[in-house]
Amino acid sequence: MAGPRGEYRKSADRRAQIIEAAFDVFSRGGYTATSVNEIARAVGMTQTGLLHHFAGGKLALLEAVLDSRDKKAENTLEGRTGRDFLAGLIEISRAQAGQRGVVQLYTILSAEATDPEHPAHDHFRERFERIADAVTAALEETRDAGGLRADVDPRTAALSILAMTEGLELLWLNGFDVDMAEDVRRFIGTYLIDPL
Amino acid sequence: MAGPRGEYRKSADRRAQIIEAAFDVFSRGGYTATSVNEIARAVGMTQTGLLHHFAGGKLALLEAVLDSRDKKAENTLEGRTGRDFLAGLIEISRAQAGQRGVVQLYTILSAEATDPEHPAHDHFRERFERIADAVTAALEETRDAGGLRADVDPRTAALSILAMTEGLELLWLNGFDVDMAEDVRRFIGTYLIDPL
Repeated sequence: MAGPRGEYRKSADRRAQIIEAAFDVFSRGGYTATSVNEIARAVGMTQTGLLHHFAGGKLALLEAVLDSRDKKAENTLEGRTGRDFLAGLIEISRAQAGQRGVVQLYTILSAEATDPEHPAHDHFRERFERIADAVTAALEETRDAGGLRADVDPRTAALSILAMTEGLELLWLNGFDVDMAEDVRRFIGTYLIDPL
Repeated sequence: MAGPRGEYRKSADRRAQIIEAAFDVFSRGGYTATSVNEIARAVGMTQTGLLHHFAGGKLALLEAVLDSRDKKAENTLEGRTGRDFLAGLIEISRAQAGQRGVVQLYTILSAEATDPEHPAHDHFRERFERIADAVTAALEETRDAGGLRADVDPRTAALSILAMTEGLELLWLNGFDVDMAEDVRRFIGTYLIDPL
């Protein structure tokens, strides 16, 4: 495959700059209170110039920001199954501790988006579903390999693991001395015959 | 004690109406994107008229809304200790399931307030601290009565219970089929010698 032509590359670089600026602005103000104009100013463009790159406006900007973060988590988990996938969740929790801004953005947006009328509602709903399904599958694989405790329902456990992860992030953001990765590791361990 | 005089009572009624309207408006829009003017309109007053009752403005309105909810939870827990206090937490989770609006408001605000510069940051930080301390004390009382598993650290467990409760609310608001009270009951039970 040939490399991108000059114009295309310039446009891709610009998009990446805009996503980075959008990330910063959303991180401070959340979604509702942030304007496209504010993001345009942060990257030294006019609103019209910015909308040339993101015709979908503020929602498209948000989705680009969210996708770029989710891509990193997916890379960590790619090709992993069963216990190894569960260990990947702990690695992701450990990486969060160095990314306060992005964790704060996610926490604020996922809370705002609980409103069914919020433009990112479906995005977050589907994202949580996808994670819950993937963790359920990993627990089922662990069960099939004889590693899950007998009384554990994989779906219920997956939702609890997701709830615990989200809740720990909230407490950590509030300045509590919680070790998110260690607490997630210990919690997942309560479902397993051999702790992680 | 004599009843409130007419004028005072009228003012107290007005305050209660305003708190109710503020609750509705904050529930829809969160804190950042809501204006005092919007709340004033919802209760059929001018902004100046409303500020006569809440000189502290938007933050004072928010705190009045939060206090009125916390008061109900405190009534449920009043005078209870040890296992009985822990059972009260489950009752509160059960009551939440009928109050989507207030749970959504809390979830959005507590997320927005993770920003140290958010005007309600200290309020939420202190609120979480207060809950964490109370749950820690209840677990210590349970331990002193011989009801706690030997390897459980009350403070760590209290933070995990708080994280689980907050995380379950987030999933429930996102439409997941979680039984918050039942999941909290089961989770607290993992720390106890006899389940609740």
